[in-house]
Parts: sequence; C-alpha cells; structure tokens
Amino acid sequence: MSVSFYQHPDRFLVSVDCIILGFSNKELNVLLTTRKLEPCIGGWSLMGGFVRSGESVNNAAMRVLTECTGINTIYMEQVGAYGDVNRDTGDRVVSVAYYALVNTDQFCTAALQEHDSIWMPLRELPELIFDHKQMIDDALAILRTKTATSPVSFNLLQNKFTLPQLQSLFEAIFQQPFDKRNFRKKLLFMDILEKLEEKDKSSSKRGAYYYVFNEEKYQKMIKAGYYFSI
Amino acid sequence: MSVSFYQHPDRFLVSVDCIILGFSNKELNVLLTTRKLEPCIGGWSLMGGFVRSGESVNNAAMRVLTECTGINTIYMEQVGAYGDVNRDTGDRVVSVAYYALVNTDQFCTAALQEHDSIWMPLRELPELIFDHKQMIDDALAILRTKTATSPVSFNLLQNKFTLPQLQSLFEAIFQQPFDKRNFRKKLLFMDILEKLEEKDKSSSKRGAYYYVFNEEKYQKMIKAGYYFSI
Repeated sequence: MSVSFYQHPDRFLVSVDCIILGFSNKELNVLLTTRKLEPCIGGWSLMGGFVRSGESVNNAAMRVLTECTGINTIYMEQVGAYGDVNRDTGDRVVSVAYYALVNTDQFCTAALQEHDSIWMPLRELPELIFDHKQMIDDALAILRTKTATSPVSFNLLQNKFTLPQLQSLFEAIFQQPFDKRNFRKKLLFMDILEKLEEKDKSSSKRGAYYYVFNEEKYQKMIKAGYYFSI
Repeated sequence: MSVSFYQHPDRFLVSVDCIILGFSNKELNVLLTTRKLEPCIGGWSLMGGFVRSGESVNNAAMRVLTECTGINTIYMEQVGAYGDVNRDTGDRVVSVAYYALVNTDQFCTAALQEHDSIWMPLRELPELIFDHKQMIDDALAILRTKTATSPVSFNLLQNKFTLPQLQSLFEAIFQQPFDKRNFRKKLLFMDILEKLEEKDKSSSKRGAYYYVFNEEKYQKMIKAGYYFSI
C-alpha cells in the first residue's frame, strides 16, 4: 500500500512465534530451536519469524509452521499478542503467538534438521529467550480448557488410537493422572468414537482396540445440545 | 530504542481497539463512536488508537480506556490480534482487541461527551467499520465462556446487586432465558455471595434482597478444588 491515511509516526516490527506441540512417548513436547542471530544468539527459542508486508499475520504463522515442519494441514490457533516495550532486546517487536497441534509421525525430518529444531519435553524445558516461556504457559492454559471441552486434542494423535493412548495424552496435557474407569465411562458415554476390529499389541499381550474419532457423530451430539466433557 | 539488531524492512502501524461492555436496562451495551477521520469517516467504530513507541500494547489499551471513560480500574482482557492485510483501508494496521467490563454508573459523562461516544445495545448494533463486528463477536464468545466458569461478569454490576439483576445479566450475556429456580440453586450452592439486610424495592413491592460477592469465600472454594459453574 503506497498511500497512508494516517500521520502516526510509530511503526513496529511484527513477528509470529509458534508453539508447536507434539505428543510422543507419553509426553507433550514442544518444537524448539537455538537462535541463529543476535541478541541472545544460541538461546533456546520457539520457531518464529517477522510478518511481511504482503501477508496477514495468520498467514505468516502458517508460513513459519510449514517451513519448520514440512506439513501444512495443522491445527493452529492464536494465543494472543505480546507487546511489552522491552520484550525483545533486539528492537521493539510486537509478537503474535500461535499454538499448533501436530501428529509427530507426520513430521518431515528433513525440515526439522534444516531448521535445527528438536522436540523438547514440556516437563524439561530449558531457559527460553524473551517471553517465550510465558507464551508456552498461556498456550497450555488454552489447550487445557479446550481439551476439557472439545475433541481438539485428538489432533495430537494418529487417526486411529487406543483408549490407553488417549488417556496418556490427557494425562500429559493436564499433568495429572486420570482414573481409568471414569475416563472411559465419560468418553464412551458421548458416543463419538468408532471401535475398530484391529488391536494394538505393542503395549500389552492382550492388546488394546483401536478407535477413530467420528466427526459426524460429534456434530450430531453438539446439535442435540450436548457438549464434550471429560 | 535507537539501534536495531534486525534488518527486516517491514514495519507496521499497531493499534488497539476496545470493546467496552456495560450492562443497563437489562441489556448488554457496547461503547461506540462515530469515526472522526478518513477512511470511513462518520462510520460506527469501537474506541481505539495507535500504539506509541514508548508504551506497551496493554498500556495503550489502558490509555484508550481511561481517556474514553474517565475511569481506570476496569476489568480488561485481550481478545487477540487482527492482522489481515486489508482489514483497515487506510493503511496496513495490525490491531490488538481488548474487551473491558464496566459498571455503567461509574462512567464519567463528560468523557463520553468529549469522545462523542454512546452506549449501543448489542442487540441493535449498526454496521461497523473494518472488522470491528468480528472483534465484538470474538469478545462475546470469550465473555460467555468466562461467565459460565468464573465470577468475572460481576464486574458489570454495582457492588451490591439483587438475584433478579444477576439473572438478567446472565440472560443478556447468553441471550437466552435462565430458569429462576435452577439459577438460584446453582448460585447459592457455591456460597460465594453475602446476603445484605437491605432490599431493592424499585422493581417490585415485595422487594429483592441485595447481595455482595465475597472474594474471600470464592478463593476458598477454588482452593478446595471446586469451581464456579452456572
């Protein structure tokens, strides 16, 4: 845009920071990288980048996600804007944080290597640059609310999953154990899962049946005035 | 800050837009003004302004709120960042929206007149400029979730209020009627209100007792592992 109607003198760099969450080994992990530029070179950082003049802030976040992961069908939601004056010691930068839920199996290893990024368990987070720890905390608070009230966390699993896997996921998100019987009762009561004939035998001899989430049944439940609740 | 570590060329105007909500006449109202500058001069707009280089984005929102209302102890929360390329037809502007809950009696009439702002019932919203309608819709979605799970909406009432007033407030926020008996049962069960001796006799001959919210009892309830639920 070449002509501005506004005389206001203060213009800012705007960045996006992505909290990319993946679930594996019964742990919730976040994708981190070591920073390649000053200030704080070498520090642990979320994946991010500056917004360009021709792209929306949402699209900038999608671009960063696709570049860093090699996939583009990702569940992503905005966490919020971070606008403290001195939050970035390199310049005044207003950053918009997004969290994304990915199935770690879908990941392109080459993209990870190219961006020198690694999965870090949330329980063993190193010290992060700027306000990135706060961004992760805020994203987790949103994820917990959403997980308790919607099937959003299923994005962290493969298409088919076992009930023990689903319970592990909830335990990783809330960082607390769930009672197995109550968990299954609440879950199956909603009737939004389809049981498959196939079993996962990797975790026990007896095996555990695979399930898939049925979006159609879920929408039917919502339309009937019920809601997801664990 | 005079030195930047970053070479990125694209810098943006950043603004704040405030969804200031007040409750009166059994209606939820939002503070609107007519726009004083091009583009869209004369159009209905939220209260807003540009972020200045020396202030945080949060402080810019507080500044706008205080200027427009004459009060500074307001419940305020961020809704999110709005970053579409052409959202503002005057220039590329990334805007951060905030919603605020105020007691309309606290309002400074002079500040309202000075900013040519008026309370508009949410049910009779005129056409708004840019993406301001979307901002209001997003703020209401957050407010509804918070109202169902926390006493945040009490900020819209005076310190002392009657149960019929509280029920009217919930009905205005959710735009649906609540069953009087169920509403009272759930509310009083939490034991977070103090009944006063005094009655409001303006609405009925028999009158309705005033109550006040007891923050201490609420914190005790939360600590005991219970949560607000209507």
